Amino acid sequence: MISIGSMEAIGRRVALVLCALGLLTITAQAQTDPLPSWNDGAAKQAIMAFVKETTTPGSPTFVREPERIATFDQDGTLWVEKPMYSQVIYCLDRVPAVVKAKPELANVEPFKTVMSGDREAVAKLTTHDLEKILFATLTGMTVDVFSEEAEKWIPAAKDTRWKRPYTELTYQPMQEVLSYLRANGFKTYIVTGGGQDFVRVYSQRVYGIPPEQVVGTAAGTTYSYDADGKPILTKDPKLLLNDNDAGKPEGIHLMIGRRPYAAFGNSTGDQQMLEYTGAGDGLRLKMLVLHDDAEREYAYGPAQGLPDTKVGTFTQALYDEAKRDGWTVISMKNDWKTIFPAAH
Amino acid sequence: MISIGSMEAIGRRVALVLCALGLLTITAQAQTDPLPSWNDGAAKQAIMAFVKETTTPGSPTFVREPERIATFDQDGTLWVEKPMYSQVIYCLDRVPAVVKAKPELANVEPFKTVMSGDREAVAKLTTHDLEKILFATLTGMTVDVFSEEAEKWIPAAKDTRWKRPYTELTYQPMQEVLSYLRANGFKTYIVTGGGQDFVRVYSQRVYGIPPEQVVGTAAGTTYSYDADGKPILTKDPKLLLNDNDAGKPEGIHLMIGRRPYAAFGNSTGDQQMLEYTGAGDGLRLKMLVLHDDAEREYAYGPAQGLPDTKVGTFTQALYDEAKRDGWTVISMKNDWKTIFPAAH
Repeated sequence: MISIGSMEAIGRRVALVLCALGLLTITAQAQTDPLPSWNDGAAKQAIMAFVKETTTPGSPTFVREPERIATFDQDGTLWVEKPMYSQVIYCLDRVPAVVKAKPELANVEPFKTVMSGDREAVAKLTTHDLEKILFATLTGMTVDVFSEEAEKWIPAAKDTRWKRPYTELTYQPMQEVLSYLRANGFKTYIVTGGGQDFVRVYSQRVYGIPPEQVVGTAAGTTYSYDADGKPILTKDPKLLLNDNDAGKPEGIHLMIGRRPYAAFGNSTGDQQMLEYTGAGDGLRLKMLVLHDDAEREYAYGPAQGLPDTKVGTFTQALYDEAKRDGWTVISMKNDWKTIFPAAH
Repeated sequence: MISIGSMEAIGRRVALVLCALGLLTITAQAQTDPLPSWNDGAAKQAIMAFVKETTTPGSPTFVREPERIATFDQDGTLWVEKPMYSQVIYCLDRVPAVVKAKPELANVEPFKTVMSGDREAVAKLTTHDLEKILFATLTGMTVDVFSEEAEKWIPAAKDTRWKRPYTELTYQPMQEVLSYLRANGFKTYIVTGGGQDFVRVYSQRVYGIPPEQVVGTAAGTTYSYDADGKPILTKDPKLLLNDNDAGKPEGIHLMIGRRPYAAFGNSTGDQQMLEYTGAGDGLRLKMLVLHDDAEREYAYGPAQGLPDTKVGTFTQALYDEAKRDGWTVISMKNDWKTIFPAAH
């Protein structure tokens, strides 16, 4: 047994040593660049200044730790969204299984076109056609069966340009921002137009973000019992939350209940999330990734002088709003030293 | 400057001291009862055994820390729900302000009855009448204005029997369970039929549960801009999630995306949450608070041989399901030494 007296002595020594270590840690942090994949410039400076000013005690814009919420769009902000959202590719890949289960769909559009394997025809499917495919492939099964199917597909599917799984085509500079914010007490959330259940399957492994910190487009579920009387949750073909545009701040309020202090996006679908973030008191960080690097990734959208491509549109109007309201535009080409993490 | 050599020496000393402290902490924990307001009995033993078996490395039912999710109903499980849910009292208290803003409601039922101050007539309002009052008092304003109003009301409003604010009428034994689970790496969530935005106003202060860990009945919101062009979120009179009955597991899937390992309730409104929890693999804790203490709190519901009281009904069928499926019924009278925290 250790006496109370010696416990107190240990306590004092630990306190002293921890103080010393604390100082060492602060020194070490000042010397290590938390964002090594970022070139020096306005974007990197904005992130560093934001973290310093919101987390340094005594700063006029200090934010208490529980309030430190940062939200990130996924497609085009954390990983590649071209030539198609990876979840859409998942849905197209699932069509044969759906048609096998319901053979009557083989001669019904848009399933017929997808089954034909004609890539050009598939690329021309309308939004309405795609919605039919999404509902047919993402709903009607239990949430457990859905997760199992997605978990099988994700590591196997590869991007055609880089020949790497989609989950490896995340942006290394953004991974560093996620880690840097978390190391400074921020809770990082994905707020995606993509399917909430789909992204939750890999968010922890790919971004270090647990499922409960993924807000996405969500279908409702229905609770019932299977033939053995076991409770099940079945995914309904009924949209509960369309987590795009105004749906992003609405989803943030529903799922988090706090206004973010930092928000990252790359398209008009993120505009309202950034506006809502910026409308809060104190210092708020609003950032947009501009895809202006045709060589290392892609260049697209009107803000690049290129036609509107529907997917992840960074319009000129969004660019102008960013400039007017003090949002920071991240140039992939100029701000990022590297785009992707090193291959495993 | 401290040399690398002395840093290493400090590191070794800290490691040793922390080890010693770790042992002391373990010893101290073994000696300190984490549930001092619980009488020894099956309920207390079930909680202690569950925590031990899910958190001891090497246990066959060990649960990794990120998976440790525990969900708690609020009304009747964490605090008093009689004679009326406190949120309903809030809504009734808000009626004069609503009528002042819209004088035409003064002669319209059910507002007319509420304005009359006739308590007996108010007690007889139908569910449909109450819904009208809830929508009129909980929606139509911005989420910020709603929070401000609720924050003003909560500390001022008092229960008529105990003359204490509602927020002090939490169950001390359940507060201990919340703390005990959190100390063992569980994330504690409120999953309530009450309004999500309402409960979020006080959940941190009253239960140590942050707003993002409150799942409740939720109206949608609409994003727009005020006259100055500032983004606002307005509460819609449109139900998005009815977080009762089957809505509880559905809400848990939507908002958390993981199946709980422990769930606590007190009525048929919690039945599906407990079933869903129990249907998972491994060890799951399912507990129901039975209000059988007319002297210190209340005794109600068919499981007590008393008439169905609508509010928080613990039916005989629920009692039978609990016994059949290995859920644990907590007797307020026999399992709890004290009911409420000591007055401040």
